[in-house]
Amino acid sequence: MVDTHILTGQGNRLPRKDNRGKIAFQGERGAYSEAAAYKYFGPSTELLPLRTLSEVFHAVEEREVRSAIVPVENSLEGSVSETYDLLRTTNVKVRGEVNLRIVHCLIARPNVALKDVKIVYSHPQALGQTRQFIEKRHLTPQPTYDTAGSVMMLKEASKSVAAIASAHAAEIYGMKVLKKGIEDNHNNYTRFFILSLRDAPKTGSDKTSIIFSAKHIPGSLYRILGEFAKRNLNLTKIESRPTRRTPWEYNFYLDFEGHRTDKKCVDALKQVQKKTVFLKVIGSYPKAEL
Amino acid sequence: MVDTHILTGQGNRLPRKDNRGKIAFQGERGAYSEAAAYKYFGPSTELLPLRTLSEVFHAVEEREVRSAIVPVENSLEGSVSETYDLLRTTNVKVRGEVNLRIVHCLIARPNVALKDVKIVYSHPQALGQTRQFIEKRHLTPQPTYDTAGSVMMLKEASKSVAAIASAHAAEIYGMKVLKKGIEDNHNNYTRFFILSLRDAPKTGSDKTSIIFSAKHIPGSLYRILGEFAKRNLNLTKIESRPTRRTPWEYNFYLDFEGHRTDKKCVDALKQVQKKTVFLKVIGSYPKAEL
Repeated sequence: MVDTHILTGQGNRLPRKDNRGKIAFQGERGAYSEAAAYKYFGPSTELLPLRTLSEVFHAVEEREVRSAIVPVENSLEGSVSETYDLLRTTNVKVRGEVNLRIVHCLIARPNVALKDVKIVYSHPQALGQTRQFIEKRHLTPQPTYDTAGSVMMLKEASKSVAAIASAHAAEIYGMKVLKKGIEDNHNNYTRFFILSLRDAPKTGSDKTSIIFSAKHIPGSLYRILGEFAKRNLNLTKIESRPTRRTPWEYNFYLDFEGHRTDKKCVDALKQVQKKTVFLKVIGSYPKAEL
Repeated sequence: MVDTHILTGQGNRLPRKDNRGKIAFQGERGAYSEAAAYKYFGPSTELLPLRTLSEVFHAVEEREVRSAIVPVENSLEGSVSETYDLLRTTNVKVRGEVNLRIVHCLIARPNVALKDVKIVYSHPQALGQTRQFIEKRHLTPQPTYDTAGSVMMLKEASKSVAAIASAHAAEIYGMKVLKKGIEDNHNNYTRFFILSLRDAPKTGSDKTSIIFSAKHIPGSLYRILGEFAKRNLNLTKIESRPTRRTPWEYNFYLDFEGHRTDKKCVDALKQVQKKTVFLKVIGSYPKAEL
C-alpha cells in the first residue's frame, strides 16, 4: 500500500499575487528543472515549484508567474511527451532553451549502506537513464513524480529504499550520496524550454519550433521538409506525436535554425502552411550552447 | 514506504525447456498485451508472462520461446520508447503487427465505492491515456509496471486505491469495475509487434520497418525520404529517438508500405544505405487492419 503524502508530495503553491515575479518549474526543490532555471536566469531568481507540468503551463497562461522552465527532451531517453502535448494544446510560447548536463546519484538515508538497497525511487525519465545500473544490481525501480521528491520521501522509507536524483537534492534533504554518476552513458543532457506568453526577438543565432500535421497524401512530409532544404534552413530536430483525433495520424514537431521573422523562414513557413492541415509556430528563441 | 512484492509482482517464469512453444509478453495475466496475443494467435495459444520488456526480447533472442508480442505505440500516448530501443539493440525481427482497441476501466475491491477512491495505480501509458479523467476527479496517479499487475495489487491496498486496467483483468483478480471507458478519447488503439528471429514472407499487403541514422549534413533526412517518395512508397510512420552516443543526434524509425524483397523496396533501401551512417531493416510483415 502506498501513502499519498509520501509518493506525491505537496507543491507549495502560494496565493496568486505573490508569484508574479517568479519562474515556475515542475518538481520539488533540488529537481533538475530548478538547476536549469538557476543556470538560465541566474542564482538569485525566485522560483515556484509546482506539482505537474500541466500546472506549470497553466500558471504561464494565466499570468500567475513571469515565466516557466520545462524539460523537452533528454539526450538518452528522448522527448518528454507531456511537454510536447501541452505545447500543442496551450497558448504558451517558447522564448528560450537551455541544456543541462545530468549527473545522477544513488541517494539514501545517512545510515544506509549500498548493500542494503533493494528498491529505487525516481522519475521515470531518470529510471530510464540509469536502467543498466538498476538491472545489473537487480534493484526494483519504483517510478515517482519527481527526482528530488523521491529524495524527500526517503525520510519515511525503509532502509531498503534509495532514490536517484542530483547531489544537490541529497544536500537539501540531508541525505547521503552512495554513488555518483550512475547514468548509463555520460552523454546525458536534458534540454529545457523557457515558456512565456511571447517568444523572443531576433538575435542572429536563433531557432524556431513549429508543430504541424501533414496532409494525408504520399510524399507530403517529404515535400514539407523540401521547403526547408531548398532554403538551407537546417533542421535540428523532428519528432512525431499522435494527433489523438484519428489513430495512426501524427503531428510533427520540428525545430530549425533561424528566426521566424527572417525572410527565408517567412517564405518557408508560408509554403509549409499550404502543405499542412494545421501549422502552429510555438516560438523563436536564441540557440543554446550544448 | 513501498513493499517490493506489491509494486512489482513476480513474473512466473518457468524452466527454459517448458517455454519453447509459448508466446512471451510483458505484464501479468489480464494485461492488454495478453489480449493482443489472443487476438493475433488465437484463444488456445500458450502464453508466458514476463516482468520486463527486456526479458521478453531476450527470451526471443535466446530461443526460449516461439515468439513474443510487445506494444510499439498507442494512438493517444505515442511510442513505447523502451520497445524502440530494444528493436535497435537486439537481433530480434518483426514478423507481424496487430492493433487492439483499448477500453480502460476504473477497478477497485468489491467493497469500495467511487467516492472512496483517492489514488489510482496503473502503467504510465494507461495513466497518460486517462489523464483528463484523473485530473477532473483530483485523483493521485501512481505509476506501476503493468495495468493488470495494478489490479492484482488491490488485494493488499487500502480502500482509497483503485487501478486502471481492462475489464478482463478485474474479472481475473475478482475485483469490481467502478467505471468503464474512462480513456480521454475513444480513438484509443495500441499497436503491437510480433517478434521472432525471422521476419515474414511476402503476402502482397506488407509493411517494412527500418532504423537509420542520417548523415549530419543539412537536408540529409529530406534526401532519404525522397528515395521513398520518388518510388511512391508510402510512409506510415516516422519517429526519432536519441542515438545515446552524441547529444542531439537521432536515429529514425521508419515504417513504409511494401516488402523488403519487392524490387522498389530493394532499390530504395540500396540508395538509403548510401545516405545513412547506419541502416537496419528490422523486418517485413503483413499489414494489420486498423
